Amino acid sequence: MNPELLISTRTRLTPFSSRVEACGVKAYTVYNHMLLPAIFRSLEEDYWHLCEAVQVWDVSCQRQVEITGPDSQKLVQLMTPRDMSQAKYGQCFYAPLCDESGGMINDPIIIKHSDEYWWISIADTDVILWAKGLATGFELDVKVTEPDIWPLAIQGPKAEDLLVRIFSDEIKKIRFFYSKKMHYAGKELLIARSGWSKQGGFEIYVNAPELGAKLWDELFSKGEKMGVRAGCPNLIERIESGLLSFGGDMDYNTSPFECGLDQYVSLEADIKSLSIPALRKRPVKTRLMGIVIDQQVKMKDLRLYSGDREIGLITTNTWSPKYRRHLAFAKCDVNYISKKQNYYVISTNGKVPATITELPFNFESLGLYSYNSK
Amino acid sequence: MNPELLISTRTRLTPFSSRVEACGVKAYTVYNHMLLPAIFRSLEEDYWHLCEAVQVWDVSCQRQVEITGPDSQKLVQLMTPRDMSQAKYGQCFYAPLCDESGGMINDPIIIKHSDEYWWISIADTDVILWAKGLATGFELDVKVTEPDIWPLAIQGPKAEDLLVRIFSDEIKKIRFFYSKKMHYAGKELLIARSGWSKQGGFEIYVNAPELGAKLWDELFSKGEKMGVRAGCPNLIERIESGLLSFGGDMDYNTSPFECGLDQYVSLEADIKSLSIPALRKRPVKTRLMGIVIDQQVKMKDLRLYSGDREIGLITTNTWSPKYRRHLAFAKCDVNYISKKQNYYVISTNGKVPATITELPFNFESLGLYSYNSK
Repeated sequence: MNPELLISTRTRLTPFSSRVEACGVKAYTVYNHMLLPAIFRSLEEDYWHLCEAVQVWDVSCQRQVEITGPDSQKLVQLMTPRDMSQAKYGQCFYAPLCDESGGMINDPIIIKHSDEYWWISIADTDVILWAKGLATGFELDVKVTEPDIWPLAIQGPKAEDLLVRIFSDEIKKIRFFYSKKMHYAGKELLIARSGWSKQGGFEIYVNAPELGAKLWDELFSKGEKMGVRAGCPNLIERIESGLLSFGGDMDYNTSPFECGLDQYVSLEADIKSLSIPALRKRPVKTRLMGIVIDQQVKMKDLRLYSGDREIGLITTNTWSPKYRRHLAFAKCDVNYISKKQNYYVISTNGKVPATITELPFNFESLGLYSYNSK
Repeated sequence: MNPELLISTRTRLTPFSSRVEACGVKAYTVYNHMLLPAIFRSLEEDYWHLCEAVQVWDVSCQRQVEITGPDSQKLVQLMTPRDMSQAKYGQCFYAPLCDESGGMINDPIIIKHSDEYWWISIADTDVILWAKGLATGFELDVKVTEPDIWPLAIQGPKAEDLLVRIFSDEIKKIRFFYSKKMHYAGKELLIARSGWSKQGGFEIYVNAPELGAKLWDELFSKGEKMGVRAGCPNLIERIESGLLSFGGDMDYNTSPFECGLDQYVSLEADIKSLSIPALRKRPVKTRLMGIVIDQQVKMKDLRLYSGDREIGLITTNTWSPKYRRHLAFAKCDVNYISKKQNYYVISTNGKVPATITELPFNFESLGLYSYNSK
């Protein structure tokens, strides 16, 4: 029997918690001081269902750090090395937040509501403290808060069909990584085409607790024939899709370049970002790589070897039922990631050969083809 | 069956994790992105043992925010409204950290190692981000880090006896809320007489992962005859003792006065603290109070009523086996905390009368006497 999670007021409930429990959640994690479901049936059963149908995810733990006031854009730009100057209203940006040495603070989605009104939809660190600290020290004319907004993600190939039944064909007009305000039960809700899977879907930013159960129940009644289920960010799917998790795959000591986020750093832009000067000079010591192992392994430890040398540390790993390979991410010494090395990990049965590849995995170029669940 | 905790690299393990598992941990919580054991046998069995013997607690999640450099004392004082100017080397201070509006950021123990070297031993928020944000904005000459230090608490009436067997009689010289550097296995470890219980004990700041299992095992072999067990912060004991939990009993919207931390705010001192100007003016709207109920209750919700009016919110509650009363903390509207009101809570069986009292509970003045475990 694995240890339980002891739930307290500190590990906050959400407006969907009663429904999550009723759907038989089997495991939680804690994320931003809040309950995040982690397993409903099993990792693998949840995985196949996500890839084939539609799921409703309580991702309330993606808290919003809200920045308002005349210096809002200035503060947001200070925090991220990604150029925000061309951001359009309602657009969503995946953007690393970095400190003055170029170390990552978080990897949120930034949403611009207007020039003086932004949301930072955060991963698992208290970004509000970083934003407030900078605002106080630099005497910026902003207000930084963490309002109670509880995102509900609708993920999977049938997500659009399901939302159309509640919100009309207007849903189809929302482009990838854009958001739109929609009416629901007398309230205005922001809905974005986004989410922490590569199966397609939306995130609904629920802004009134009494809407939680109502919206959940409507999604389940309108989605019954589609086989809608409660779900959650899925370990297998996110590894196959190359989605990173802050605190696991990267942390305060990691630069965006070290976890492959090069395209989200605007080194050449004429912007005032705290981290850009440091990022121009900071050496890249490690690189987050994909690892492919031909057999299912139970790892003895999380080290990756080349010969007798320890050259990396596995940050997450799973058996992929779709590609029938064991997949992992590993933080590797950049001096040892040429593809000619003989890599291996230590399983409970001894050495097992491993291949290193870029992230996200390109299964076709690896010669891997997908099996279905049948 | 209660939901499990799904453990990942994000919910960090500690140097004691293998031992915690071997001791049969039944429940965890997550605290500062790290595993914190929450139950070993049962809350009540763990409780009685803590009050009568000695326990070893893996409280690695009490992370240290380390501040070094010429402006260290200045930054620490900016963050807390408690006067730090008279702090002695090795002294430990329980101190609220507050923002410029007087809202609490955290309630850590601050330890002064020297004028230019401080530790903030934190509760469950990322204080490093607040400290770094302020340091960056105010251009302070400091370095702010979160080094890998894993506190191990030895708590219970036999804690001193146990530590004397490992660290000699020198242990007895450590006064309450002072620390001392002691030698162990070729390393220098800081040991403080402190800990999150009122049963007495120490916290050992383990600074090398390889010492974790060694020290744990020695504590268990030397403490065998004392009946030493693995333990953890205990919900029953902490409520009886009036110990507050950040994120549960208080949060960013709470001032120190609202949770009874008046004595840790130096309003009259000549110090440069961010929050003092605001705290001088900030109205006290709620107050964290103790609640006593004559029977064991299963609460239907967390509201506290007086007549038809909802006047408070229960932040934590437990049956006290020692005082044979149900005890709770509640955040109460200050306009309704005179002792003449008819208070009640709603249990699953209906209204149950409640009494309001100051925290920490003064059981004698409440006419309550303790029963023992037999």
